[in-house]
Amino acid sequence: MPTQEHMKQVLQTYIDAFNAGDAAAISGLYAEDAVIEDPVGNPPMSGRAAIEEFYTNAIAGGAKLSLDGPIRGSHGDRAAMAFTIDIPGMRIRAIDVMTFGADGKIVRMDAHWGPDDIAKT
Amino acid sequence: MPTQEHMKQVLQTYIDAFNAGDAAAISGLYAEDAVIEDPVGNPPMSGRAAIEEFYTNAIAGGAKLSLDGPIRGSHGDRAAMAFTIDIPGMRIRAIDVMTFGADGKIVRMDAHWGPDDIAKT
Repeated sequence: MPTQEHMKQVLQTYIDAFNAGDAAAISGLYAEDAVIEDPVGNPPMSGRAAIEEFYTNAIAGGAKLSLDGPIRGSHGDRAAMAFTIDIPGMRIRAIDVMTFGADGKIVRMDAHWGPDDIAKT
Repeated sequence: MPTQEHMKQVLQTYIDAFNAGDAAAISGLYAEDAVIEDPVGNPPMSGRAAIEEFYTNAIAGGAKLSLDGPIRGSHGDRAAMAFTIDIPGMRIRAIDVMTFGADGKIVRMDAHWGPDDIAKT
């Protein structure tokens, strides 16, 4: 199982790489067959190619991420973070939970944000 | 599926009932056969009686909860919140994810906090 330090560093790298516009660096944090459900309740997508395209599009839309507070670990294979996504004209509040594989890659990401968590700015 | 408003209200009631010392009100938010894994990675506990005992003990320990930011919904049956647990001499930072049943009760709670998310105060 990955260490707490590793999982938290991966989530911080996720934020930093996103804000640096580096979709390839983000997709590299994921396992090849990882699944992301963003938002929870929508059909999940899987595979690193689809994941990289997802982040490429999000970055192209001008989104920037900022943590609402410290990244949390667990006593198992998961870590979580509450953050704010600022897109020109829009703000989304989300909580992401990442599940890790034994090799330290993210195998699953669940993004919790609902229709009421988007506001015009 | 419960509405976003319902799920967010349940999470707010959870915080308020905890801070009011009302373990029965919290356990009443759960389904009879609900499962809680707190923290994620420890053996889960199930059933409303065990759940009420868990909250009774937490409240007796003097814990108080404060939200770190707005409660998040989803496009499905889940809601999440980042919060801080202040216990005399200790602070824990956690992110809880609640999964709801069709009747609006919580069927599962996952609490994300690791050994590094506890600090002496």
